[in-house]
Amino acid sequence: MNTSSFLNATEGKRVDEIPVWFMRQAGRSLPGYRALREKYDVLTLTQTPELAAQVSLEPIERLSVDAAILFADIMLLPIALGVDVHIVDNVGPVIDKPLTSHGDIEKLRPFQTDAVAYLQKTIQILRNELKVPLIGFSGAPFTLASYLIEGKPSRSWTVTKRCMYGNPPIWNALMMKLSEAVISYLKMQIAAGVQTVQIFDSWVGCLSPADYRTYVLPHMKSIFSALSENGVPRIHFGTNTAGFLSDFSSIDCEVIGVDWRISLKDAKHVVGTKSLQGNLDPAVLLADWNDIKERADLLLSEIDPHQGYIFNLGHGILPETNDTIVRKLVEYVHSK
Amino acid sequence: MNTSSFLNATEGKRVDEIPVWFMRQAGRSLPGYRALREKYDVLTLTQTPELAAQVSLEPIERLSVDAAILFADIMLLPIALGVDVHIVDNVGPVIDKPLTSHGDIEKLRPFQTDAVAYLQKTIQILRNELKVPLIGFSGAPFTLASYLIEGKPSRSWTVTKRCMYGNPPIWNALMMKLSEAVISYLKMQIAAGVQTVQIFDSWVGCLSPADYRTYVLPHMKSIFSALSENGVPRIHFGTNTAGFLSDFSSIDCEVIGVDWRISLKDAKHVVGTKSLQGNLDPAVLLADWNDIKERADLLLSEIDPHQGYIFNLGHGILPETNDTIVRKLVEYVHSK
Repeated sequence: MNTSSFLNATEGKRVDEIPVWFMRQAGRSLPGYRALREKYDVLTLTQTPELAAQVSLEPIERLSVDAAILFADIMLLPIALGVDVHIVDNVGPVIDKPLTSHGDIEKLRPFQTDAVAYLQKTIQILRNELKVPLIGFSGAPFTLASYLIEGKPSRSWTVTKRCMYGNPPIWNALMMKLSEAVISYLKMQIAAGVQTVQIFDSWVGCLSPADYRTYVLPHMKSIFSALSENGVPRIHFGTNTAGFLSDFSSIDCEVIGVDWRISLKDAKHVVGTKSLQGNLDPAVLLADWNDIKERADLLLSEIDPHQGYIFNLGHGILPETNDTIVRKLVEYVHSK
Repeated sequence: MNTSSFLNATEGKRVDEIPVWFMRQAGRSLPGYRALREKYDVLTLTQTPELAAQVSLEPIERLSVDAAILFADIMLLPIALGVDVHIVDNVGPVIDKPLTSHGDIEKLRPFQTDAVAYLQKTIQILRNELKVPLIGFSGAPFTLASYLIEGKPSRSWTVTKRCMYGNPPIWNALMMKLSEAVISYLKMQIAAGVQTVQIFDSWVGCLSPADYRTYVLPHMKSIFSALSENGVPRIHFGTNTAGFLSDFSSIDCEVIGVDWRISLKDAKHVVGTKSLQGNLDPAVLLADWNDIKERADLLLSEIDPHQGYIFNLGHGILPETNDTIVRKLVEYVHSK
């Protein structure tokens, strides 16, 4: 049996200690990261192996979590495909020339490992340093496409949906190109040493169940299927997926990540024998300890947390989160 | 039997023609409204009976819908309670001094009909003019509280949740004060002549099911219970409610409104004998007619649309929507 509670949980095995990690644990809220951000922008940090490794390692020591996640940004993949992306403070990824035509999609370069050679180095440094498993990740095609088409973060994703409804050939060409890129990108990460992969479809919950099935699900199936031969656990994460969780979890993978908008009990009922990851509301970490503890207890009471379960938030940790209380929560979950 | 297909549908009766209306049909996208907005700001329009009535009437003639909704803004109620609200273009409601203390809540004036005398006049004008039922509405306490506490529209509602978790006495005092105000506000609208009321809990879907039950549900129950004696159909609408729809629809009311993130079939399974309203993605109206038709067909195939069902969007109509295609959709749904 593997000695990592995290990896055992991904395989549905019983664990003595409930594994814990947090989305966005690397970057965002920790003091070491914030000090680095005074000197460097986000893209520089992600593209400089020694610094990216330092950011990935910080939560392991400071929070005592059971897995590390590669410090990267989902936009590194579009950048590797030749898209000109800026990460704007308090806004997010901005693309000056959003994709609008077949020509724009054809101009996307095929994914080449060389374009993210820095990530290979970061992964190698991390594997040498880490005693816990390293998680690699990618944005899912829908979420990436929504940035490429909208040109900036959106609340209604109408430009994306207009393209999806109005121009299925362009939509499918883009989704297929991004799917191929996601597969190669994650295979590169696995070859370099990551021991688990998570695919973030953070914005796919803006779709109806029927549109999810038509425009997204086939592409996700092909990605997860292509990754099955690599033998590392695959985590499929989305937010706002309560209404189509049965479709979302029909894809071949080991772990389903859900947000707090569905109870773990209901989610477990749908995902069946797959493992579950989540789903504390990140805003709870801004509350007092007793409130945090009470909500963690509730969450853990909804399922058998010692089998096929990974404690996490329902989305990324908020920048204003205090790390002392997060560490206390990790220790508390470990004590259960 | 009532001659209004809309009212009959709210009562769960069989109808020959499926009733249709659209959230935000009054204001936002129609040419008459947009011309008025060149001259007046939103609050002036809502507070001037003749103009507000004109905006409410426009979709009846232009779109041929089966119900009118009072042209108003959910912030009219906080304004009536003494809150200084600005509606900022492309942003939404902004409050310079968000509520932070018991003192701030105590300063909220009790609701008085006089403070919204203009609405009574608008309703009277509309009832004289209209041949279809008139819907009155209010924001729900959670959604109103989130604006009052955040001071502006939010994506994560962290300030609201911090208050909710960290200061239950303040939270409950505010929710109770708003609940009382919502009750009085809707009773005033009913007394003035609205024939249905809808309560918009547009942002409540940012909560976990457990938090919804703890912090919101009891207040919603008391509101709907207080309105039961008035004998008008009550519609309870929210977005992102798929994960707690059973709680959301446990409240005594006639109609549940859902967004597109859940299939009508799944929603109907949960709401049981209550009527259902929704749930086309507003972004679909930006597509070509064949795509709109296909999605309307799919939606109508998921339930028996001639009993206990009102065709609507899953949230407000988008400003860029073309009214010609919307009218075509109304005629199409009527032909089914």
